[in-house]
Formats: sequence, C-alpha cells, structure tokens
Amino acid sequence: MSHVRIHNFSVSLDGFATGEGQSLEAPFGHAGTRLHEWFFGTRTFQEIIGEKGGETGVDDAVARTWDTGIGAEIMGRNKFGPQRGPWEDESWRGWWGPNPPFHTPVFVLTHHPRPSVEMEGGTTFHFIDATPQEALRQAREAAGGLDVRVGGGPSTVRAFLAADLIDHLHVAVVPILLGRGERLWDGLEAIEARFHTESVTTPSGVTHVTFTRAERPTD
Amino acid sequence: MSHVRIHNFSVSLDGFATGEGQSLEAPFGHAGTRLHEWFFGTRTFQEIIGEKGGETGVDDAVARTWDTGIGAEIMGRNKFGPQRGPWEDESWRGWWGPNPPFHTPVFVLTHHPRPSVEMEGGTTFHFIDATPQEALRQAREAAGGLDVRVGGGPSTVRAFLAADLIDHLHVAVVPILLGRGERLWDGLEAIEARFHTESVTTPSGVTHVTFTRAERPTD
Repeated sequence: MSHVRIHNFSVSLDGFATGEGQSLEAPFGHAGTRLHEWFFGTRTFQEIIGEKGGETGVDDAVARTWDTGIGAEIMGRNKFGPQRGPWEDESWRGWWGPNPPFHTPVFVLTHHPRPSVEMEGGTTFHFIDATPQEALRQAREAAGGLDVRVGGGPSTVRAFLAADLIDHLHVAVVPILLGRGERLWDGLEAIEARFHTESVTTPSGVTHVTFTRAERPTD
Repeated sequence: MSHVRIHNFSVSLDGFATGEGQSLEAPFGHAGTRLHEWFFGTRTFQEIIGEKGGETGVDDAVARTWDTGIGAEIMGRNKFGPQRGPWEDESWRGWWGPNPPFHTPVFVLTHHPRPSVEMEGGTTFHFIDATPQEALRQAREAAGGLDVRVGGGPSTVRAFLAADLIDHLHVAVVPILLGRGERLWDGLEAIEARFHTESVTTPSGVTHVTFTRAERPTD
C-alpha cells in the first residue's frame, strides 16, 4: 500500500509555516529565508539547486528522505505560485525553473483548472479542483504504487491531516517567533493520538518532529 | 544584578500553555496532566510533593534549576487560583497546601488586592495591582539581591516578555496538539533576537528550549 508523506515542512516555534505578506519577491512573506536556513545548509538542498557542497549530518539525512520512493506530489495552489484567483497569465510554470525537482506528476489543487504543463526532467503539473480524497486517488493512480508526497503549503497540509490521509509527517521546528502569518496546527487537536511521534534537535538548532502513523486503517 | 527567570513552562507543540475549561477540578482545563507528565517524572517534582523517587536525567537537571538562587516569585492571579473577579472567599490560599514550594515572598498580580497571607516554610503571598515593572521592583526589593522568578500563567509570562523584563526563559515543548486554550507566544514576534536560544530533546519526548538574554541593557 502506498503511503502519503509530508517532508521538510518548517514551522516557527509559534507555529507559523509562512509569514505575512507573501509575494513574488517574498514567497514566505516577512519570514524571509529564516524558516529554511537549516535546509539550505544540507547537501540535499544543494543538489536540488544543482550545486555542490552542503553538510551531510542529521539535518541532511532527515531532509534527504523527501524523495525516496515518491511517485507523485500534491501541492496547494499557493505553493505553486503567488497568484490568487483566476489565472491571469498561464505562462507561470512554478518557482522552480524549467527542470523542477519533483520529477513526477504534480497535482496542483486549484479552483481554477488549466491545461497540464509538462516540464523537463519528468515533472508534469496537473491542475485539479478536487477534495483531498479525490486528489489523493488521482495521485495514487499516477504514482504507480509508489508513495505520494503532500508538498504544502500549510492549508493543504492541514486539510490532509484533518482528513486523516497522512501516514508520515516531518516538521522542522525553527526556534524563531514569527508572530504572524499562516499557522500550521490550527484545527488539528489531538491528531498526535493517531501517530508515533519522535523529536530530535540537531546542532542547527532545529527540532525535527516526526509523526508516523501508529496503525493504518484497513483500506 | 539580580536576574528575572521563567522555568519549567510547558507548552504544547501548537503553543498552548493551558487548555480550555480551567476550573478547580481541572487547573489546566482539557489539557489535564498532559503538559506536565515529563515534570512529574523528575526527582525535583517528587521532592516538591514530599515523595521519594523520580528520575535524575536531563529533564530533572533542567527542572531542578527552578529554585536555585531565587529570592521572590511573581505570579498571575490565574496561577494562584481558579477564582476570577473580586474575591468571594479569602480562605483560598493557593493550590499548594499549608507549606507551598516557593519558600520566598510571592507577589500575586490581581486587580483585587487583599491582605497578605503568611504560609508555613517561608512563603508569603502578597496581592498587588501593579504593572510588570512595578511588580518587579517590589519583588526585587523583597528578593534581597537574589533572582526573581516569574511563575506564570501564560498571560503573565507574555506580559513580562513583551516588556523585555526576562533574562532567562525555559520552555518545555510537549509533542501534543491541544488545539484550544491559552497561547503562550502571541504578540512576541522576534523576541528571540534578544536571546541566545538552545533546544534539546530528551527521551521523554519533550524539547527544552532555553532563551538566555544575549546582552543586558544597562540598568
């Protein structure tokens, strides 16, 4: 059975997954790069952006699991780009350049579907207006038996967690207080009861918290 | 110069320091005892309640620093008791029995002052209607050169942090999602810039986050 996984999802100590004032120039708003400095330092990230170097400690080991065994991704429209509402310009093909790091089908949840976009390297963006359950059905079909990653942003992660569709969640808690932005944890009271949780702090100062489904329902 | 310290302050992963529905029977509301299980397991806590036993690992080492060098405590009225508004019954002398674990003067912040109450073992409760700055002035005078502890609850901690009166903050992040209650971190954007922060996860699953003032203003 293919699993549904969330990786490398950074939140501030006060629970914000993105800051206020998101825009083309500031994808994480006033948070800037502060939520992701730990990730930038890893070899995994450096490879994603085509660079050499980066650390290979525990931050890297945890980060690296993000694409092992993944056959498709589901992301929210706000992760795909800064636009809101009807597409005014379909030339936007994501933040990631001509060869995005996904290398799988990617299902972008939007109330405004548009034609699929095939990129270099195996990534194809599909735009669907679907419930989490229906999106997951399509992603599983496309994943060919491999796992499905839910890539964010926070409202998409919340929706999939609330619908009890997630088997593995990795959150990196960064010891900063953003004060404002979009919260990850709202509406998720007591979900930890469905998971084994584990926490570990690394020398970067980040605490990796993993939630692993304790028992899968029969499905 | 005496420092102002906060110790053993537990919050859920989603930032709640207490649950909803606080009452005489449920001082932390629907959180029950879940925020403090790590503390109950320590020898420090067992000694406070007059019992033997308890673990002596890192949780205990961190917990134990709470009363070293403390000459006075400041607490909010909601930590002192479940009553709200004017005192209907002054026979309430706190949650802690005839010999409270403070053994120092304790300044209870309330809009409804009442006569001081002297307890066994050196604890005296003083009830004052004061700003954080004024409360701290009185507590420092009473502390005789020792440090002052700010004991909670969350709104009192927030007020002292917002007023930049805290030199040391220890928060224990418990990997549960309470979903509702009183948040610790609201209104404290970017306060980490004033501190060195350190995080460490212990085998209990709790992450101890300490904030140590990076540089004291001249005062």
